[in-house]
Amino acid sequence: MRLDFSVAVHSLLYLDENRPRKIASRELATSLQLNAVMIRNILSVLHKQGYIEGSVGKNGGYQLIRDLSDINVGELYDLTIPPTISYARFITGDSKGAKASDSTDISANISQTLTDLFTLADEDYRRFYHRFTMTDLKRDLHNHGFFRNLVGQNHPQA
Amino acid sequence: MRLDFSVAVHSLLYLDENRPRKIASRELATSLQLNAVMIRNILSVLHKQGYIEGSVGKNGGYQLIRDLSDINVGELYDLTIPPTISYARFITGDSKGAKASDSTDISANISQTLTDLFTLADEDYRRFYHRFTMTDLKRDLHNHGFFRNLVGQNHPQA
Repeated sequence: MRLDFSVAVHSLLYLDENRPRKIASRELATSLQLNAVMIRNILSVLHKQGYIEGSVGKNGGYQLIRDLSDINVGELYDLTIPPTISYARFITGDSKGAKASDSTDISANISQTLTDLFTLADEDYRRFYHRFTMTDLKRDLHNHGFFRNLVGQNHPQA
Repeated sequence: MRLDFSVAVHSLLYLDENRPRKIASRELATSLQLNAVMIRNILSVLHKQGYIEGSVGKNGGYQLIRDLSDINVGELYDLTIPPTISYARFITGDSKGAKASDSTDISANISQTLTDLFTLADEDYRRFYHRFTMTDLKRDLHNHGFFRNLVGQNHPQA
């Protein structure tokens, strides 16, 4: 879900800002204003994927082991929000072809057309996030509007 | 919700295919494989917005009063799926600034940055749908892959 993406982004920005200090998940949770349990799953994913390093014990905690400029925002989006596996519940018609529900073939064929439309739209949506690195987000954090201007320049018609 | 968009698209395609016959909402519902109650709301929106004409009574029913080539898919998307009003539940941090939850200002500022990111991404997402007319969807319905190829041509890198 989308909150997972925000958890990842927020965590990486916080670890970056506090380098080289080791950060306990409880401290991170305080900054995120979420329960520590809610963020552990994502921290574990970030750890497995080699974004952060973690150690337990008295002096334990998480550290960022990559540069923000090397971390693509779309990469984090794909990691935390997997593509929809089936659009069936958003689609009308009789995709099974079980019933001759109308004589126009629309009912039998619209599922494929809408699935293609939604899939391509989602791919396009993900490409948007892939245009940015975490450095862009960090700049915006310190200077709201930076990101908005960046997109405006790429999309003069927007 | 996204199903509303599919209801609108499917209904318009069905009315187009059956011109000039007047179509009862029950017949439409059969093609959509939905309960008639679930589609009346969207039919009412399409009626108010001047896409379809409807009459009640024995010979009543809906008719499409616009050409598919004049109906933009993004227009239907915007009509049936309004933009998210607040991303608050998808965002971490302390946007109210109520607590000095950390010393880095990330917690207080990330809400604005993520809201801008999500808003711009959504605008971009809607632009994708605006690139097509209902004629494109009709062509794909009769020839699956048409739509996929169309996008491929626009996005050679895809």
